[in-house]
Amino acid sequence: MSDPRHFSRSHRIRFSECDPAGIVFYPQYFVLFNDLLEAWMDALLPEGFAGYVLECRWGLPTVRLEAEFKAISRMGDDVELVLDVEHIGTRSMVLQLRCQGRDGQLRMQVKQTVVTTSLVTHAAIPIPDELRAALQPR
Amino acid sequence: MSDPRHFSRSHRIRFSECDPAGIVFYPQYFVLFNDLLEAWMDALLPEGFAGYVLECRWGLPTVRLEAEFKAISRMGDDVELVLDVEHIGTRSMVLQLRCQGRDGQLRMQVKQTVVTTSLVTHAAIPIPDELRAALQPR
Amino acid sequence: MSDPRHFSRSHRIRFSECDPAGIVFYPQYFVLFNDLLEAWMDALLPEGFAGYVLECRWGLPTVRLEAEFKAISRMGDDVELVLDVEHIGTRSMVLQLRCQGRDGQLRMQVKQTVVTTSLVTHAAIPIPDELRAALQPR
Amino acid sequence: MSDPRHFSRSHRIRFSECDPAGIVFYPQYFVLFNDLLEAWMDALLPEGFAGYVLECRWGLPTVRLEAEFKAISRMGDDVELVLDVEHIGTRSMVLQLRCQGRDGQLRMQVKQTVVTTSLVTHAAIPIPDELRAALQPR
Repeated sequence: MSDPRHFSRSHRIRFSECDPAGIVFYPQYFVLFNDLLEAWMDALLPEGFAGYVLECRWGLPTVRLEAEFKAISRMGDDVELVLDVEHIGTRSMVLQLRCQGRDGQLRMQVKQTVVTTSLVTHAAIPIPDELRAALQPR
Repeated sequence: MSDPRHFSRSHRIRFSECDPAGIVFYPQYFVLFNDLLEAWMDALLPEGFAGYVLECRWGLPTVRLEAEFKAISRMGDDVELVLDVEHIGTRSMVLQLRCQGRDGQLRMQVKQTVVTTSLVTHAAIPIPDELRAALQPR
Repeated sequence: MSDPRHFSRSHRIRFSECDPAGIVFYPQYFVLFNDLLEAWMDALLPEGFAGYVLECRWGLPTVRLEAEFKAISRMGDDVELVLDVEHIGTRSMVLQLRCQGRDGQLRMQVKQTVVTTSLVTHAAIPIPDELRAALQPR
Repeated sequence: MSDPRHFSRSHRIRFSECDPAGIVFYPQYFVLFNDLLEAWMDALLPEGFAGYVLECRWGLPTVRLEAEFKAISRMGDDVELVLDVEHIGTRSMVLQLRCQGRDGQLRMQVKQTVVTTSLVTHAAIPIPDELRAALQPR
């Protein structure tokens, strides 16, 4: 991963993600992005997101998000899920997440603020050093 | 329903809605609100949301949302889910949705723009007359 | 609850539970039954299922199930979800779970073996005394 | 795909798939297997499962399943999801589905009967010729 603040992967929209209107049930986009964020953390940290949560007992909850839905996605569509870090603060990060078609058409996007927390107290903590280091451009 | 632009119901947070951090997995809030919106439409329309979707072939997709997460909800918590109509446009409505504790503490809230569409074309249509009529204060 | 080994509740099938074929996505039945089991435990135990899991650190995982799907359920259908205890063992229970239409038509049923475990070790433990006592016919 | 009656893929267990006990919420296994079945159909048919459902209007609902849960899976675990066709009938197939650890340890398995249906009538139909042909060993 040359730029640790950018991450993407391909995904085919599944039957299980669609609703009776035949299109992605919109809360599923947030599940897809949560899985994307987890894969990104797996790429950043040696112990992965599982180590971050289960061993270090740190969390990364969302405190704010703004989403825009521009075009529908149907079952079988091949899409690209893209994550970009827009801002790194003391105890939080602002992420830009997008779902786009193979032709680059934007389906939906989310601007999301996540906070680093202790899972013991559920209170915010400074971004752990190893995560902050992993986020530095190389 | 005296004021058709306000709707609420009680809900107990379920095991199935929580994540390994022991709190509501945030995309579940959007599922809960979608179920709330559906129950509200059931109260507004004689044929309910099922008639709106399956017989009339109309949709009510979300085109924009802004969510703030203020406090966590845990498994077993009794919460109140509240819907208020903030604005009624030509082909869209702005809804304010809240999840609050029994003590009134705000857990999270969403401002959500939904559009009335045809499920045949997935294009926006004017708010159907019967829905617009049902939204009039009585 | 006169017979603690029988429990049921009404449910309206929601948009969020259905798939592009317009019927309940079958894994959702297991989510519905898990919520039913949780509501049943809430009725049995003073601290509810949340106390059972979060305070006592006990689990109730499924080790075996057999399911039959007899008829479809569509969005908007009003169904009855029914739980019956078929057998109580030393460390396990066999449950019979059914989803039926308001007319009594069987939609699907599951015979499910659940085991009482420690969430610390994930190993089976004898059915806790307070749960065993609550299961006695009154 | 040399043997069209066998299909598998790797999967890392995600946060979104786990429950407050820190292990896979068991209905999620059925979602994972449904996605696996869909990927298998994509490999079998030129138009994929999306074409099977959306264009041909055929369904593949489950009418019966037996599942055994042998060992837990935790967030971050790398597992193998395996599908084998056990029997091909006139209007149905019996599938054997397994989730196993990278070390081959069986986590859970399902024996599942699926039926080919018309999504217009929801009635069973003979296995479509192109699916039957694709299932022949090559």
